[in-house]
Amino acid sequence: MKETRKISNAVIRRLPRYRRYLEELMKNDVQRISSGEFSEMIGYTASQIRQDLNNFGGFGQQGYGYNIRSLYTEISAILGLDREYKMIIIGSGNIGQALVNYTNYFKSGFHVCGMFDVNPRLVGLRINDIEVMDCETLPAYLQENKIDIAIICTPKSAAQGVADIVCAGGVQGIWNFAPTDIRVSSGVVLENVHLSESLHTLAYHINHKDEE
Amino acid sequence: MKETRKISNAVIRRLPRYRRYLEELMKNDVQRISSGEFSEMIGYTASQIRQDLNNFGGFGQQGYGYNIRSLYTEISAILGLDREYKMIIIGSGNIGQALVNYTNYFKSGFHVCGMFDVNPRLVGLRINDIEVMDCETLPAYLQENKIDIAIICTPKSAAQGVADIVCAGGVQGIWNFAPTDIRVSSGVVLENVHLSESLHTLAYHINHKDEE
Repeated sequence: MKETRKISNAVIRRLPRYRRYLEELMKNDVQRISSGEFSEMIGYTASQIRQDLNNFGGFGQQGYGYNIRSLYTEISAILGLDREYKMIIIGSGNIGQALVNYTNYFKSGFHVCGMFDVNPRLVGLRINDIEVMDCETLPAYLQENKIDIAIICTPKSAAQGVADIVCAGGVQGIWNFAPTDIRVSSGVVLENVHLSESLHTLAYHINHKDEE
Repeated sequence: MKETRKISNAVIRRLPRYRRYLEELMKNDVQRISSGEFSEMIGYTASQIRQDLNNFGGFGQQGYGYNIRSLYTEISAILGLDREYKMIIIGSGNIGQALVNYTNYFKSGFHVCGMFDVNPRLVGLRINDIEVMDCETLPAYLQENKIDIAIICTPKSAAQGVADIVCAGGVQGIWNFAPTDIRVSSGVVLENVHLSESLHTLAYHINHKDEE
């Protein structure tokens, strides 16, 4: 079942969370769940859940609820988690190294194939068995290897230059950890993780919690 | 100037981004900017910018625009970046180590005072000059040290237990990197960074970009 109309970003952002809860339920051998029970677990209203899942054809059945395994499989397919992704990490400092070691990702079809850095002290090292290559070789590497996702973990001054290279090199998506906004070619998907903005939002709420 | 009414979460999430652009402008010695010019840089509409900043009393002047330094100072104060935060990191694996090394944070009033782990191979190490202590000592540490923010980087199975300890220990906020939802005591602020959900959102858009 494929969706036939545009799904809002808010719904899309909730899908990985639905999937995470379904995964837990499967681990606990639960077979089915009503939208009401699901609501209590996940913290969205039952009507929100029904509405969200209706976007994808509605897999629930009156009086039965949702079959957990089939909903999990369906959401995984919608997210594109039923295929493999080849990834590279550019910028092999702290965040880059943490990500390559974050083995969680490898289990789920996301494979880091190579790392890149400009720092001669890092180039040639193997991190979690992935070789750190010289950034100079990145355009040639991308010509020889079809890479789906580039993870940018460089300082902000280098991020746009790297983004230009990987866009020209045919990646489909960029996962950007550099604390800056980058421009990407049309047809390339960009997802930002701006850690300092997240921390600043936390600081805001700490300072305003008496008003909230 | 303090805001007098509830600011929406969407506006709050945009503030760190405004501040980041203003910081860039200051570095380039720009003194003032109109909402139209600001719009072109940051990608929000001019009317959105005026509306957002009006929430805080509106610092722009007709025919002059915004004074960059004073807007920066004001937004920093609103976010609570005019004070210091003492932080601890619980879970000293890859992500925890990356965060303590991410010196960006130290420059801006966020100080990591200690790290904790259950792994005897990590306890006793110093990472970026911060000692890794045994998680067993965490309750006593929190009694002796006033900590504002706990950063949770443990596996998901340990996250709720750690959250309970730091809430009891008087932290004001939790920055959660564990891939699970945790419950916090009332009065404690929670901000999640769910990396795998971000990556799954990227995967969704890669697989659906022809429809978008």
